[in-house]
Order: sequence, then structure tokens, then C-alpha cells
Amino acid sequence: MNTLCIGLAGSILGLGFLTVASAADPKPEDAVRYRQSVYTVIGWNFKPIGAMMKGEIPFDAAAVARHAQYVEMMSKTAIEGFPKGSGPDAVKNTEAKPEIWTDWNQFETKMTDFQQEAAKLVEVAKGGDQGAIKAQFGKTAETCKACHKEFRKD
Amino acid sequence: MNTLCIGLAGSILGLGFLTVASAADPKPEDAVRYRQSVYTVIGWNFKPIGAMMKGEIPFDAAAVARHAQYVEMMSKTAIEGFPKGSGPDAVKNTEAKPEIWTDWNQFETKMTDFQQEAAKLVEVAKGGDQGAIKAQFGKTAETCKACHKEFRKD
Repeated sequence: MNTLCIGLAGSILGLGFLTVASAADPKPEDAVRYRQSVYTVIGWNFKPIGAMMKGEIPFDAAAVARHAQYVEMMSKTAIEGFPKGSGPDAVKNTEAKPEIWTDWNQFETKMTDFQQEAAKLVEVAKGGDQGAIKAQFGKTAETCKACHKEFRKD
Repeated sequence: MNTLCIGLAGSILGLGFLTVASAADPKPEDAVRYRQSVYTVIGWNFKPIGAMMKGEIPFDAAAVARHAQYVEMMSKTAIEGFPKGSGPDAVKNTEAKPEIWTDWNQFETKMTDFQQEAAKLVEVAKGGDQGAIKAQFGKTAETCKACHKEFRKD
């Protein structure tokens, strides 16, 4: 909400640089760059947890906790990267479907699901119980898939 | 250190997907993508603080605190995006200078400076004192510039 206020203020004041790279009323291509960056950071941190859960690399509770924190932080900002007007009609290099903006409430719900499960993953990771982490990792991954299925191009 | 252990394990086990997008022994182009993503997230969050400090947009202590958290989180992972072999001799689309790897200790020191000042910015932001935030924002920005000057192409 604060970010929205800043965006509004930025727009009113006509601050050019704010449209370059901030959460405030950004250019479509900058928004795309931001959200793709956010998902890159998510993937970088999510995949090693997955590898541990599959037993492909040794389980390391401290590493899981650290990676989970990054996933959670990114889950809370991802939606900033989807301002109106940053869909495939405005930019080429995006896998975002137009439905994100035509069905915004549903998109927001999926994002909230992700945030909630990622937050739980952080909590569970603190406990260090591999089984519990595996279960919560699965739930978190499901929220990724659910959103991608509906709102991301294959 | 944990990440390094995971990387080592991943390499030994020959886990292909780990080289795609993780902190572990990544392909040069994936490392570049990761570090550029990290810096995009930093910029997205750092610039609105700067705009507030310059008085270009209204000061919002809560927004500063939130943005500072993202800057700090990213400051702690940025170095993961600079594995050996991901310099300009290996990839084209990078502004990273070879000196990062030939003078690694100095690069690491600059990164640590950034981490420390960003962590202080988070603390100062909690206090909500605009003057103190401005001073600490300046110190943090100096660590960005110091590192860019030495290790990033113009």
C-alpha cells in the first residue's frame, strides 16, 4: 500500500526516474525485468531445497532455512512486477498471460497462497525436521504450479 | 559455506539441473542472470529510498524499512552470482570486470562493506528518523559506488 502511495506521488510529480526501475508505476519492460528477476531469485533458492528433498544432494537444514527466507521475501514482492499495462499486448518477452489482468482477484489469491505457504516453509525450516520440510516444500511448490498453470504461458 | 557444500555435492553427483539455476557451480550464463537479477531487485528497492531522501517523493518510514530489507537480503546473496569462470572471457552480456576474480579478496571486502552498511540501513530505518536514514542511505550508496568503480565496466 505504501508502495502504491509512492507510485501515485511519483506519477503526480512526474518523476521520470521513478518509471525507470522502481515499484512505482514502472515502464512495462522494467516491470517485466523486475518480475523475471524476482522469479530467477526464487528459482535459484527453491531448486536446491527440491534437490535435497529428492535426496539428490545431502540435506542441510541451515541451507534450507536460508533458501526458504529468500523464497518468502520474493513471494511478497513478486506481485509488484505485474502492474497494469505490462502484459503480452505491451511487451514481447513475457510469459505472463492476459488473464492476470482480466482476472486480477484470482491472480492475487494465487499470489497470496504462495506467500502463505512460503512463510510456513520458513517456519518449518527453522525446526529442521526433514519430513516436515518435505511436506511443506511440496505445498509451496503446488502454489507455484497452480499459478503457472492458470497465468503463465507454457 | 553451506551453499558451497551443496555445490560441491552437486558437482560430485553430476546433477545436471543444479547447474541450471542454483547457487551451486552454475553455468556462467546462469550466474550472470542471477547476479543481474539480484541487482535489479536492489535497484528497484534502493531508488525509491533515494527519491525520498532527495525530497522528490514524500518520506514514508514504513516503505523505507521494507525496501531496506530487500536491499539487505540481496546484499547477502549477490556474491553467489560471481562464481569463477563467469567473467567477460566466458560470457558476453556482463559488465563484470576480470579484476573481480584476479582480486577476489578485495571484491569480497567491497561486498562485505555493502552488506554491513545495508544491514545498518535496516536498523536505522526501523527508528524512522529521516535524518539518520539519509545519512545511512548515503553510506550504503557509497559502498555501491566503491565496488562499481573498481569492478564494473562503465
